[in-house]
Amino acid sequence: MKEKLSLPHLKKIIAVASGKGGVGKSTIAFNLAVGLAQKGLKVGLLDGDIYGPSLPKLLGLTGPAKVQDHQFIPFEKYGIKAMSMGFLINEEMPVIWRGPMVMTAIKQLFKDVAWGELDVLLVDMPPGTGDAHLTMCQSISLDGVVIVSTPQDLAWIDAFKVLAMFQKLHIPILGIIENMSGFECGHCHHLTDIFKEGGAKSAAEKLGIPFLGSVPLDPKIVQNSDAGVPDLANFEKISKKLLPELRSF
Amino acid sequence: MKEKLSLPHLKKIIAVASGKGGVGKSTIAFNLAVGLAQKGLKVGLLDGDIYGPSLPKLLGLTGPAKVQDHQFIPFEKYGIKAMSMGFLINEEMPVIWRGPMVMTAIKQLFKDVAWGELDVLLVDMPPGTGDAHLTMCQSISLDGVVIVSTPQDLAWIDAFKVLAMFQKLHIPILGIIENMSGFECGHCHHLTDIFKEGGAKSAAEKLGIPFLGSVPLDPKIVQNSDAGVPDLANFEKISKKLLPELRSF
Repeated sequence: MKEKLSLPHLKKIIAVASGKGGVGKSTIAFNLAVGLAQKGLKVGLLDGDIYGPSLPKLLGLTGPAKVQDHQFIPFEKYGIKAMSMGFLINEEMPVIWRGPMVMTAIKQLFKDVAWGELDVLLVDMPPGTGDAHLTMCQSISLDGVVIVSTPQDLAWIDAFKVLAMFQKLHIPILGIIENMSGFECGHCHHLTDIFKEGGAKSAAEKLGIPFLGSVPLDPKIVQNSDAGVPDLANFEKISKKLLPELRSF
Repeated sequence: MKEKLSLPHLKKIIAVASGKGGVGKSTIAFNLAVGLAQKGLKVGLLDGDIYGPSLPKLLGLTGPAKVQDHQFIPFEKYGIKAMSMGFLINEEMPVIWRGPMVMTAIKQLFKDVAWGELDVLLVDMPPGTGDAHLTMCQSISLDGVVIVSTPQDLAWIDAFKVLAMFQKLHIPILGIIENMSGFECGHCHHLTDIFKEGGAKSAAEKLGIPFLGSVPLDPKIVQNSDAGVPDLANFEKISKKLLPELRSF
């Protein structure tokens, strides 16, 4: 076992993971962070996706991050502190990095950022169970993980793999969130389960893992995400349900 | 420059790439492969996603693949030959692999599979511009790439990065496909651009790259994907438009 980074100023480090990309994991991590901050916690959000960082767009901010006393200063907006590789690189530059460079980059986001004292640092994990993922689990003491999936079988297959990986590493699964859970037509209010419905919920029940809630497929969330604005209406309940899970360990 | 694999029996090797996961790249690669086969080409489909292979589910097939004369025999269905790491591993096993193992696995999918003579091998690329991606570009002579994106800004940012990477490597961009392009309510037929609309199309025009077409957000495609059935209605036009691009070089 490799030695893990010592990060006593970060009380809880919680990963948000999905396995499959494009299920809205980053949008959910961002809105959860803002939601938890509004409940009075000191919250940080670390965008762990080295290859395709979404956080600058979600926050509506651009880098570069300032450096002070050899540390990157996190951005502050909507009551949270935030850092992303996207604040350290040019957005249009293709990031072609080999494994060892990824390892160094990820450690820097934890170690070389002036996070200060935080109640919880949410880590928006890279997709997959690849190199970056494994490095994160080996070098950081994660206190728990929130799994995000759409109801589609193809998404749940990958989410389950990630869930199994975390269980194997003895990291507590705090709950599952189902995203893109149904679409209500703005014209006739007819509900269509475009990506089917309830798959993640029934999987959570079967596995005995808390179901934290579902988020609808809503053009407003897409617009807000692209405009760098949080969407609190849909995330209020989920943040509330996550709070006791965060305090229970 | 590393030496590339010699694959003279594969006339054209075309990558399907997206940058961001979850934009439907695998579904599109699968339907393009079937569409091109129906136009009379000998088509193979290689699922290059080592971490989250989707092809077994899309084809409705399970492994393991048979081995003959030290080669894996590709599966044949809907007129195409297909191979995926998902046919070689257990679907529920978390794939935690380090860079060098990924490199070996990807090369095997090209070299140690009995593809036979093919007019075109479509490669469903892994998401991102990471390790697996770079290995693929370094060890295989790619003849071209098709880029898939949703209309959402967050997806296009990543698609553009991948596009820039391929341009840097002097691999021709054959065209851009916009997926999840609009949703028609099954009840009132009102059209909602859930993920916005036309972003990929206007980007293609701006960059002077062929726009191959858009695919709507359609529950039928999701159902077909989960059921292992192709969706030819939506892909007929796109396959037809891709064909001359394939023959033009």
